[in-house]
Amino acid sequence: MCPNNPVLTHHISSQFNEELQDVNTKFMSMGGLVEQQVANAIHALLEMDATMSVDVQFKDNAVNQLEREIDEALTLILARRHPAAIDLRMVIAMSKANTDLERIGDEAAKIARIAQSLSEEGGSPRGYMETRHIGNQVRIMIHDALDAFARLDAEQALRVLHADADIDREYQSATRTLMTYMMEDPRQITRVINVLWVLRSLERVGDHARNISEQVIYMVKGFDARHTRIEEIEQKVQR
Amino acid sequence: MCPNNPVLTHHISSQFNEELQDVNTKFMSMGGLVEQQVANAIHALLEMDATMSVDVQFKDNAVNQLEREIDEALTLILARRHPAAIDLRMVIAMSKANTDLERIGDEAAKIARIAQSLSEEGGSPRGYMETRHIGNQVRIMIHDALDAFARLDAEQALRVLHADADIDREYQSATRTLMTYMMEDPRQITRVINVLWVLRSLERVGDHARNISEQVIYMVKGFDARHTRIEEIEQKVQR
Repeated sequence: MCPNNPVLTHHISSQFNEELQDVNTKFMSMGGLVEQQVANAIHALLEMDATMSVDVQFKDNAVNQLEREIDEALTLILARRHPAAIDLRMVIAMSKANTDLERIGDEAAKIARIAQSLSEEGGSPRGYMETRHIGNQVRIMIHDALDAFARLDAEQALRVLHADADIDREYQSATRTLMTYMMEDPRQITRVINVLWVLRSLERVGDHARNISEQVIYMVKGFDARHTRIEEIEQKVQR
Repeated sequence: MCPNNPVLTHHISSQFNEELQDVNTKFMSMGGLVEQQVANAIHALLEMDATMSVDVQFKDNAVNQLEREIDEALTLILARRHPAAIDLRMVIAMSKANTDLERIGDEAAKIARIAQSLSEEGGSPRGYMETRHIGNQVRIMIHDALDAFARLDAEQALRVLHADADIDREYQSATRTLMTYMMEDPRQITRVINVLWVLRSLERVGDHARNISEQVIYMVKGFDARHTRIEEIEQKVQR
């Protein structure tokens, strides 16, 4: 796992190295798992696959378990190793990003619950195209944010921030379309609102991928990129 | 601020004491601010007070600024002081709870934006009673969670977890009522959906207050209460 990550190879204590490697590996597995959970939840919704929607809800337990294990490992590293400089920033960034990964898992489970009830009701008359499109984009965002984390790539993290701005616009537009449709055919309100909740969840997933990317920038560049205009972040990253 | 907090008075280094005191004071101010932001956002919605809704959105900047300052102070404490045992748990709990406070601030700003657009449209025909009721409850939850944090009171934190379970039920019930209303009077869909988003935000605020309470239990009792059945937490807290 990430053999070129310079943070994970520079320690004098090989024990420290190993501990940081282990938690990093676990963090990356958790990232892979939640990425898959989002993909499966969207698949379950689009294909009305009730079995898969149950499976996603069940697997959220594994995500939760990983969150606990990662935080426990990070606490032990803080207590025993007193990391400094980029090591400390990596521990802090991983602790924050761990919360975001778990929340992405929660959103995937929510989408899967809605997929299950929609498949029992025979699906929604609208909103699948929007779900597929925004769903694909946020999956790519999660993937890119994790890749940026693994490779300590602040430029890639920056691209995720840009992608999140696109998602927000597309989410607004999809919401307006679905609201217009509900007014035209009020009998479908319940089912279409379910799709609105899914889109909202996907938009939240995009926000979490952005948060993870902000942590990558903090880890690599040492500055707090939260609540900062993207042009300002750009200048600092590319300096 | 919290003169009886035993964590903040037991250190041999008075410098360390002071740093932990300072960040704790800042954390409590941030808590007070976001509690007020939620109260004001609800007030702005219920009273159609456009000025207040603008004010809440503006003040979110102050919340964001506090989030950055608190995380920066916590990182310095980790780097310089190498806290252990309950000190370390307090730093970690504050770092996690800091994120939750900032997200509560985000939800308050979202509610304020909706309040602003609803007041321009002349308000919603329904949903104010539900908003007032759930809004009051989540405000109390934030207050109780912060109080539990300040007093290291795991039993009080446990009461917040119970309150969150109530909120989730009431949120489900309010959502069903509003959906039924929309089907009866589809011309009001846009405005009623705005109230649905507000209720959703309030439900999220309740989740964040629960997260903060879980961190209190972790800090005081040393076990990770996340993703755990409430009966099991109860047993461990009351042991």
